[in-house]
Amino acid sequence: MMDKLKFENHIASVFDEELEEIRNDLMAMGGQVEQQLTDAVQAICEADSQLAEQVIQRDHRVDEMELEIDEACVLVIARRQPAASDLRLVVAVTRAVADLERIGDEAKKIAKHALELTESGPSPMGYSEVRHLAQSVSQILRNALDSFARFDADTALATMQEDKKIDMEYKTALRELVTYMMEDPRSISRVINILWVVRSLERIGDHAKNLCEQVVFVVKGKDIRHRNGQ
Amino acid sequence: MMDKLKFENHIASVFDEELEEIRNDLMAMGGQVEQQLTDAVQAICEADSQLAEQVIQRDHRVDEMELEIDEACVLVIARRQPAASDLRLVVAVTRAVADLERIGDEAKKIAKHALELTESGPSPMGYSEVRHLAQSVSQILRNALDSFARFDADTALATMQEDKKIDMEYKTALRELVTYMMEDPRSISRVINILWVVRSLERIGDHAKNLCEQVVFVVKGKDIRHRNGQ
Repeated sequence: MMDKLKFENHIASVFDEELEEIRNDLMAMGGQVEQQLTDAVQAICEADSQLAEQVIQRDHRVDEMELEIDEACVLVIARRQPAASDLRLVVAVTRAVADLERIGDEAKKIAKHALELTESGPSPMGYSEVRHLAQSVSQILRNALDSFARFDADTALATMQEDKKIDMEYKTALRELVTYMMEDPRSISRVINILWVVRSLERIGDHAKNLCEQVVFVVKGKDIRHRNGQ
Repeated sequence: MMDKLKFENHIASVFDEELEEIRNDLMAMGGQVEQQLTDAVQAICEADSQLAEQVIQRDHRVDEMELEIDEACVLVIARRQPAASDLRLVVAVTRAVADLERIGDEAKKIAKHALELTESGPSPMGYSEVRHLAQSVSQILRNALDSFARFDADTALATMQEDKKIDMEYKTALRELVTYMMEDPRSISRVINILWVVRSLERIGDHAKNLCEQVVFVVKGKDIRHRNGQ
């Protein structure tokens, strides 16, 4: 009896370790994706084509992390058959890695636009909009990852509200970019590059919001996706 | 012994029924999403604001389907503890519903642009590009869903190749739209609406490709995401 209990404890603790490792890997992936975003925005704003190339090259590492973590999650489900909150955590992680991978994709797209923009020479047009929006988006991503690290549903819910601010900033940026194009039609191709960058930033805000929804799912057991007709 | 076997068979067949139901629900969701895409494109091309409104209203049904299927998947994992190919199927379905939901989102975005465009009066500018691209994208989505319905990895792999054609058509459309804007700067706001529509169509092609990857995952047990540095 004693031995059996010990054995079960042993099993449980290996399981806990596995869950902990998956969570750590998710946080590492989050850190990597944050860095990709920061570097991509810097590459745009400082016309740094070398940094842009680095972001593009490093995206495959983000992709690998997604596959590794996803595989670990499927293995944990198959081997440990987690229930209740443990199962919710594993499910939430698989959803979260998909969002992180897409944030990585958007960062890569931003870096590609940075390359196209540096090729056609420096131009500050639209960069202040990018810088401004990127700051808000980076903050929301940081808060989302923090809420995941601490399983803090309150921070997650508060962060989701901030996404509205980003939508407003995004719309303002779009209007300004259209004005630039109308005033100087020769700039249209360049400004469209900025347009895609601004769109990517807005998408990253959405993905950060999705991360927050998964924190609430783990902590409260409620699936709050699509509550605001998203 | 006999009774136990019978009992296990009974359990297994309830499980099979549950899996079958999940798959049927996924196919129903796929059909709904296809309809949303068809209607959204028609709303754009025929300046039909009523149809656009319907697409926007119906999107919440797609969202609900995602939540329902996802919940069914989590329940099946918790209750039945599926292994091997059954587990892969459930995992693939949860990934597939996320892609279908996003296709639904893009259809809704297209419908919103249809509304904005009808408000500013009819104009055929860029519509032939939309029609052309929409045709290819609908075809790829149909093939992806067919390959899921029949667990046909060969069709899935062939369909993924077609995505390259879509990327080319997408780039051609973008170039033409930029030309329109340069030739008539007063049209910029309108053409940007079309630009977003074209982008949404391209994204839908990507999501269809993701569906195909999940078919290969179920059938062959191989995770082929990111194989082409996507």
